[in-house]
Amino acid sequence: MTNQQNVYEPLTVETLSTRLGDIGSITDRLGPDTDSWSSEEVGDGNLNLVFIVKSPAGAVIVKQALPYVRLVGDSWPLPLNRAFFEYHTLMRQAARDPGSVPEIFYFDDDQALIVMEFLTPHVILRKMLIAGEKVSGLAETLGNFCARTAFRGSDLSMVTAKKKADTATYQGNSELMAITETLIFTDPYFEADRNHHTEGLDPFVHVLRNDVVMKVAVQEMLLKFTANAETLLHGDLHSGSIMCTENETKVIDPEFGFYGPMGFDVGMLISNYFMAYFSQPGHRGADELAGYQEWILGLITDTYSAFEAEFTRLWKTERTGILFPHSMFEDQGHSADNALDGMLGHILCDAIGICGIEMHRRLLSLAHNADFEEIDDVAIRARLEARNLMMGRELILQRGEINNIGALCALARKYNEETFL
Amino acid sequence: MTNQQNVYEPLTVETLSTRLGDIGSITDRLGPDTDSWSSEEVGDGNLNLVFIVKSPAGAVIVKQALPYVRLVGDSWPLPLNRAFFEYHTLMRQAARDPGSVPEIFYFDDDQALIVMEFLTPHVILRKMLIAGEKVSGLAETLGNFCARTAFRGSDLSMVTAKKKADTATYQGNSELMAITETLIFTDPYFEADRNHHTEGLDPFVHVLRNDVVMKVAVQEMLLKFTANAETLLHGDLHSGSIMCTENETKVIDPEFGFYGPMGFDVGMLISNYFMAYFSQPGHRGADELAGYQEWILGLITDTYSAFEAEFTRLWKTERTGILFPHSMFEDQGHSADNALDGMLGHILCDAIGICGIEMHRRLLSLAHNADFEEIDDVAIRARLEARNLMMGRELILQRGEINNIGALCALARKYNEETFL
Repeated sequence: MTNQQNVYEPLTVETLSTRLGDIGSITDRLGPDTDSWSSEEVGDGNLNLVFIVKSPAGAVIVKQALPYVRLVGDSWPLPLNRAFFEYHTLMRQAARDPGSVPEIFYFDDDQALIVMEFLTPHVILRKMLIAGEKVSGLAETLGNFCARTAFRGSDLSMVTAKKKADTATYQGNSELMAITETLIFTDPYFEADRNHHTEGLDPFVHVLRNDVVMKVAVQEMLLKFTANAETLLHGDLHSGSIMCTENETKVIDPEFGFYGPMGFDVGMLISNYFMAYFSQPGHRGADELAGYQEWILGLITDTYSAFEAEFTRLWKTERTGILFPHSMFEDQGHSADNALDGMLGHILCDAIGICGIEMHRRLLSLAHNADFEEIDDVAIRARLEARNLMMGRELILQRGEINNIGALCALARKYNEETFL
Repeated sequence: MTNQQNVYEPLTVETLSTRLGDIGSITDRLGPDTDSWSSEEVGDGNLNLVFIVKSPAGAVIVKQALPYVRLVGDSWPLPLNRAFFEYHTLMRQAARDPGSVPEIFYFDDDQALIVMEFLTPHVILRKMLIAGEKVSGLAETLGNFCARTAFRGSDLSMVTAKKKADTATYQGNSELMAITETLIFTDPYFEADRNHHTEGLDPFVHVLRNDVVMKVAVQEMLLKFTANAETLLHGDLHSGSIMCTENETKVIDPEFGFYGPMGFDVGMLISNYFMAYFSQPGHRGADELAGYQEWILGLITDTYSAFEAEFTRLWKTERTGILFPHSMFEDQGHSADNALDGMLGHILCDAIGICGIEMHRRLLSLAHNADFEEIDDVAIRARLEARNLMMGRELILQRGEINNIGALCALARKYNEETFL
């Protein structure tokens, strides 16, 4: 049995039903007869234990943090309180964009354990993108998700004292923020011990590490990451944090939740779409390739359009926070559309910067993407990765100049034709 | 007697010696014979009780927060925890720039009470600037203070987990931040109840309130104020928060301490110097006027030069935080001077924006400056204030274009010649 006094102990498939068997919110779903429960450990992420627990009555997901980075082992300790931040971020996301995340049934802070809805037949979006599958409504769902969470978690909307109190709480997620600060914003740009990259990429890594102007820009983005507490972000919104069916999309795994720049989530999401785009020649033949790549670019365009449309709608209907108050604009007969344009420009600039940096770290730092990793032919992989690295560089350098999502996609088409290797 | 269990109660000159008479760190300075103590309440600020307590053995300052805004009365409640933030900010300032603030002898959180060094014969700097007096070393002391506190409280220097924990603590100062958010960034730009301004300024107020581009810029600065937790700031660094002799300068009253943009304190300080500058024709005759005004502009130039020089020195010798790490620059044979230039540009831009906004709020919002208020001739005052308002507008609009402190002072000279009224 789990209770608030219990010392943390990782679950196993053998102990799970005994330890969770008398929690009402779980037995409500699985029934009280724990002998009929069956558990399977399915965690394939980098950090946690994940169990599917089934019974004749239903199924739930049990996610438990481990006190170290699963990908690396117990040589890299990691605090259990990330479950606290995942739980609280899920609750806020559910409130700000209802239906966007799995339903939560139970949370145990001491055990770093969350019991939630088993999403079925959902599949990790990254796998679908590698397989060349499409999801209807994907762009709109995630564009809305990014807009609603960004807007409703900011001083555009919240009572500022509450926003500040929540900002204070999330400063406690400093060890997961430190992972992002290190693996994303720093490691790719020097010889960090944990780095690895595909054979053949050395000349491109050399270009990046010798581009001082770009490295300065990366660190200016790090300053924003670590200090610009504009809103509560998911913090790790890549295609492995999204589960889909053909026509439903859910966002999972926000343990990296933090207060940061409003463009962070949407920028990281688009970045992972670009990596799906550039990696496609490693996954399918010429007959399907162009069509699917264009579908991905359409997905990027539509996602960002949905983001801007929803952000605009919220700006016009829910702008009740301290920022850009009606007293200074509408109440004096002045439109605040100018300000909205400025805000959207600021968000796009940050999003493009993050996008470029994420395109680097996923090929050079510790945690790589299956999009590229599953391409067995190293020469092909390196050729595609080189495009991705060089486009990332241009995005970081030009983040203030690229002022619409169409220009971003045009740039991707250009890099997709380059033969660097 | 005061102890941690005591319910808050404001001190009076009658109760002070009884209540503080057995606190060792105070009797160390005043002696144990409380009959020989004499107290005088001298608070002339907007918020607090301030006593000078003297004995034959010595003297101390006792500062106690009131549960409301003293300037307004008990209709505007204000939390006592601002004493906590003042105390903690003083301690951090003392560590980051030793000797810059009064020595602290005693702090009582429950009584919202700080006992500190009695600065004598120090005078509030604003009074000296109105009287046409000079302070040697002023520019260097405050330039260094702003640079050292900005740098050493940021992720350029601190262990980021400690910086995040401290950021979390300071989110609790939300009610004093709300005063700044309201009185500085919002009220001047609409008909707020608490506003008042000098007769004759209506046309200029009209210009400001109808300049939508400028109002957007003000709110973009508010976004930075409320969300860019770059470093721990004093939060209220005007010439009334500075005490000087002819050759010594101390900073007091940091109860508005908050994590915000690195340019905030130095921008507010310069703003108050500009107000001293523009108000001078109301205080002295032609024989002294030009000379003293140029002394103030020299003070501004020298303060900012000292700020940049000290920030640069710290950048080169103490850059041990996560931002712009040596691993990405010097260790690869690359200079980080480019990055320093970018950072100083970013700080100057924010400082100029804050400077312009402060120049507005001190004439239009609740709390005005004696620099202008003590000019009895309303026509003269309005003429000088108009210059100040219009220059403030240009600073807000041009904050990204003015790239050195000399250009800023040249602009002040230009506005000082304008005859708007």
